[in-house]
Amino acid sequence: MPLLTADAKGVYPISVTPFHPDGRVDFDSLDRVTEFYLSKGATGLTILGMMGEAPKLTQTESRDVAARVIARAGVPVVVGVSAPGLAAITELSAAVMDMGAAGVMIAPPGGVRTDAQISTYFSQAVQAVGDGVPVVLQDYPLATGVQIDPGTIRCIVDALPQIVMLKHEDWPGLAKITALRKAEAAGGRRISILCGNGGLFLPEELGRGADGAMTGFAYPEMLTQVVALCQADQPERAQDIFDAYLPLVRYEQQPGAGLAVRKYVLAKRGAIASEAQRNPGASLPPDAQAEVERMIARLERRLAELG
Amino acid sequence: MPLLTADAKGVYPISVTPFHPDGRVDFDSLDRVTEFYLSKGATGLTILGMMGEAPKLTQTESRDVAARVIARAGVPVVVGVSAPGLAAITELSAAVMDMGAAGVMIAPPGGVRTDAQISTYFSQAVQAVGDGVPVVLQDYPLATGVQIDPGTIRCIVDALPQIVMLKHEDWPGLAKITALRKAEAAGGRRISILCGNGGLFLPEELGRGADGAMTGFAYPEMLTQVVALCQADQPERAQDIFDAYLPLVRYEQQPGAGLAVRKYVLAKRGAIASEAQRNPGASLPPDAQAEVERMIARLERRLAELG
Amino acid sequence: MPLLTADAKGVYPISVTPFHPDGRVDFDSLDRVTEFYLSKGATGLTILGMMGEAPKLTQTESRDVAARVIARAGVPVVVGVSAPGLAAITELSAAVMDMGAAGVMIAPPGGVRTDAQISTYFSQAVQAVGDGVPVVLQDYPLATGVQIDPGTIRCIVDALPQIVMLKHEDWPGLAKITALRKAEAAGGRRISILCGNGGLFLPEELGRGADGAMTGFAYPEMLTQVVALCQADQPERAQDIFDAYLPLVRYEQQPGAGLAVRKYVLAKRGAIASEAQRNPGASLPPDAQAEVERMIARLERRLAELG
Amino acid sequence: MPLLTADAKGVYPISVTPFHPDGRVDFDSLDRVTEFYLSKGATGLTILGMMGEAPKLTQTESRDVAARVIARAGVPVVVGVSAPGLAAITELSAAVMDMGAAGVMIAPPGGVRTDAQISTYFSQAVQAVGDGVPVVLQDYPLATGVQIDPGTIRCIVDALPQIVMLKHEDWPGLAKITALRKAEAAGGRRISILCGNGGLFLPEELGRGADGAMTGFAYPEMLTQVVALCQADQPERAQDIFDAYLPLVRYEQQPGAGLAVRKYVLAKRGAIASEAQRNPGASLPPDAQAEVERMIARLERRLAELG
Repeated sequence: MPLLTADAKGVYPISVTPFHPDGRVDFDSLDRVTEFYLSKGATGLTILGMMGEAPKLTQTESRDVAARVIARAGVPVVVGVSAPGLAAITELSAAVMDMGAAGVMIAPPGGVRTDAQISTYFSQAVQAVGDGVPVVLQDYPLATGVQIDPGTIRCIVDALPQIVMLKHEDWPGLAKITALRKAEAAGGRRISILCGNGGLFLPEELGRGADGAMTGFAYPEMLTQVVALCQADQPERAQDIFDAYLPLVRYEQQPGAGLAVRKYVLAKRGAIASEAQRNPGASLPPDAQAEVERMIARLERRLAELG
Repeated sequence: MPLLTADAKGVYPISVTPFHPDGRVDFDSLDRVTEFYLSKGATGLTILGMMGEAPKLTQTESRDVAARVIARAGVPVVVGVSAPGLAAITELSAAVMDMGAAGVMIAPPGGVRTDAQISTYFSQAVQAVGDGVPVVLQDYPLATGVQIDPGTIRCIVDALPQIVMLKHEDWPGLAKITALRKAEAAGGRRISILCGNGGLFLPEELGRGADGAMTGFAYPEMLTQVVALCQADQPERAQDIFDAYLPLVRYEQQPGAGLAVRKYVLAKRGAIASEAQRNPGASLPPDAQAEVERMIARLERRLAELG
Repeated sequence: MPLLTADAKGVYPISVTPFHPDGRVDFDSLDRVTEFYLSKGATGLTILGMMGEAPKLTQTESRDVAARVIARAGVPVVVGVSAPGLAAITELSAAVMDMGAAGVMIAPPGGVRTDAQISTYFSQAVQAVGDGVPVVLQDYPLATGVQIDPGTIRCIVDALPQIVMLKHEDWPGLAKITALRKAEAAGGRRISILCGNGGLFLPEELGRGADGAMTGFAYPEMLTQVVALCQADQPERAQDIFDAYLPLVRYEQQPGAGLAVRKYVLAKRGAIASEAQRNPGASLPPDAQAEVERMIARLERRLAELG
Repeated sequence: MPLLTADAKGVYPISVTPFHPDGRVDFDSLDRVTEFYLSKGATGLTILGMMGEAPKLTQTESRDVAARVIARAGVPVVVGVSAPGLAAITELSAAVMDMGAAGVMIAPPGGVRTDAQISTYFSQAVQAVGDGVPVVLQDYPLATGVQIDPGTIRCIVDALPQIVMLKHEDWPGLAKITALRKAEAAGGRRISILCGNGGLFLPEELGRGADGAMTGFAYPEMLTQVVALCQADQPERAQDIFDAYLPLVRYEQQPGAGLAVRKYVLAKRGAIASEAQRNPGASLPPDAQAEVERMIARLERRLAELG
């Protein structure tokens, strides 16, 4: 499988990790949800992200999940390898690149604060994954507590050619995309920018120069359609589609609680066998289920109206 | 003016504080925006909240703003009095209650963490505002860093009869509303629950038992319409209206950056003379203006379709 | 009174604010504790710092305390003016400089994170205090949550000539003093560095190039003796004195709880009438009193041994 | 090896993990430092703690380190098993208990905040380690960001009989020990309390009812002597010893930087071959080395004086 490059575009869904109700990884559902993402037009896949319950897996399970998805996907697979220590990053990164991963994704640990600490961390992390391994810098302050200035991202990108992509998940973050693209226009090395946050700002992000989405949403076809329509210069149609899904996007984008929504809908759609999360994690309560069902019914009506 | 009670319902917009471009408080615009909120159906008003740039005002200015709004409003006015110290809370609270405020709103300071610390803080704060002053407990973890368990809210409410309302702004927060209403059904004292977060979850919050909204949004008529339609048992119509505004609600709900959106739209709508924020604060950049203008055009088309 | 300059040296005790048991400011004790600090060799005074319970005062009380101390002290008085908003900083700063303060001290608010945000904040704050007012940059990450890189301090100092002093209170912080002095040796503008943290690392800080102490401790004579002995090139004697007080320094340096220790000892020594803190604040429990009394007895024996 | 019980007393040094300068675990030094701690009177040992650079090890390395120490020690060995996910805790806990560990130590993850979240986390963690495995609750707010009320500790202890020990590392924390011992005197189940923070408050902690120390310090003989002397009712002699070491205790207790001090001194004393930390980690700079050397010289003189 080719390695990830700074030219990457499109939609890389953040895959859920399916579990059996007793907590074991459900590898059959992993196959099924992989096919599901591909059938909805995914350009690539990202596994072992935060919303993939990666920290709940043992290292052995992480490798097994990666092996299964990489073997099946046939598209570039990015693997989240963030860990409290560099040795664990080296170990997992080496394993998944051997399996044929397209690259690895790394978020900074919560303790780094100053620009210098952030830059130093990514130097060490890139050294830890080893020469030639493409790295995605995950910028997700709401989850990590680390705020990265656009200027600091530029410094890191200039210093570390292995960083080929930004997983952009700052909030608010539109001005950051604009600042980064401006810096590139002024001569900086171009990187790919794929956006997260469940797609909540996807139309605006694409308008600011993002290359697509790397995020989870129980209807990945929304992400692929919006990206395709924007690239085909049909922004109004893209926005109509987006707006139809927006009530559900917003509802799924509740920190923590959103994963139960996502897995409920994916199970309902047949993409996974069970909505189970590995402990700790909750199933969707009945009142929330009713809210989701109502939104889905409204979504279907609205999509029918839009034709 | 009657005092705030646990029976409060409806919409209490969080008022912006208008400034002249040179940074002085614009009292004429303050009158105008007060009228604007009332003309859109506001049940009450909340001033000197976080999105009212309250921390940027001197104590004298805070009192002057409160006096102006309370004198004009003719509806219950809740005044935010959060401050690093209790003496400042006492001073401002006494002043605004003398002016005829309906109650005061208090958020916990960032340093409190444990349930006991939170309860102790609200005991001290209620004592600081003095006997008989109705208090709104503001629960806004994203801004304060303080997470309050529903059980802790119940303990506080049971211990402190002056707390008559929860400004609910947790995220995710739907399960909290359900838990609080359940506890009341089991015999607890009822409090009013008005919701914040720009109205991003308003239909679901009302469905869970909230009494209305206490939040800012440049189209307060959305808030009042949605609350009225839900109370009139027209949830589908309420949701249609809500969904039409949702792209803009989401866009205005960007932490920090959202206030520039709100003031831009309010200025465009004639509710205030200038979108200026007092320093530090930014005006809306041209690319964001274009995004907002496009959303407004789409909103108007969609509302026309809905009839 | 002359203004604070980058040549400042010596000991500026962080003054406590004395209260009556009923919570009113005790101005007689304020006079007494001012004399106390002077009698122990203070070069200057710092008032309205965090350990001076500044956030518990109203703006009026803050001005009254400042006026009383400045009128009496006869040495340079630095006034803490940190506040959530710039307008409050402007107001208090103007008032105390009019009274004859030597300068103002400002810590960054908790929300700033990146180097750029920190630099921008101090630009705005210096503009807020107005031309010609000397500013002390307070770098106290344990209390503020803001970590400032030495390189960022240099950028701020280079950009803002009004910043004449660093109140150094990072922990660990010795390497930061060394880095700052090295940068000055390489051509940067020199600033005064006075150290906080209750003097816990005072001998090492002086050895790294600090100019003295700006901190609270119930035995300010320890601070002045250690600084004087180090300046007189008697480091072993300085260290003997320091080590004798160290058990108490350490005990007083407990976050939050330490202020009760300090006020207990100051009251015992006659420097203030009452150990009362304004609410919220606790008096020293009996078991802690016994620990302190035992330490004082041992301290006196040890000082007698040292001669 | 017998399992850890609530009757545990004495000193359990937090062992460093020795590395070769190239970053590999130095197992020979691991043997040597184990012998070193034992020769200084250690009652037990704690490995894979935060100051043992545990997060920098792979799971395989963690198991290898545990196996080596447990096989050699001949005293109870507590193993830190904190991890971002429960599956990793289960895996490591099972492995080390099989090897003969006396118990495992768990700190709460940074995200838990409310009392209920903390209690729930420890329920899940205890379930994760499995029936019959003794658990040490690590309460270290400065590192974890999680503040645990004494009442919450009591609730957890009452609910979970497997929790037999508190590693007490709150700061300030003396009142917490007193509160916990009072609650036990009123009928609660007794747990062992061993104290951390480098021993900085050891005499007072013992006076409040702690059972000993579980912490790192390059002179573990200080910890064992102070505990022994206090138990032998010689508090003045204990305090003399403590005070002699205090300048170094304080210096080693600098967050982050302190580990370089500890490893430097341990290497100097021959307990480990190299002061190297695994990346990221710094060696002790020359100016800090000079400060440490001076403190050691003074310490030796002072101990000689004390006889």
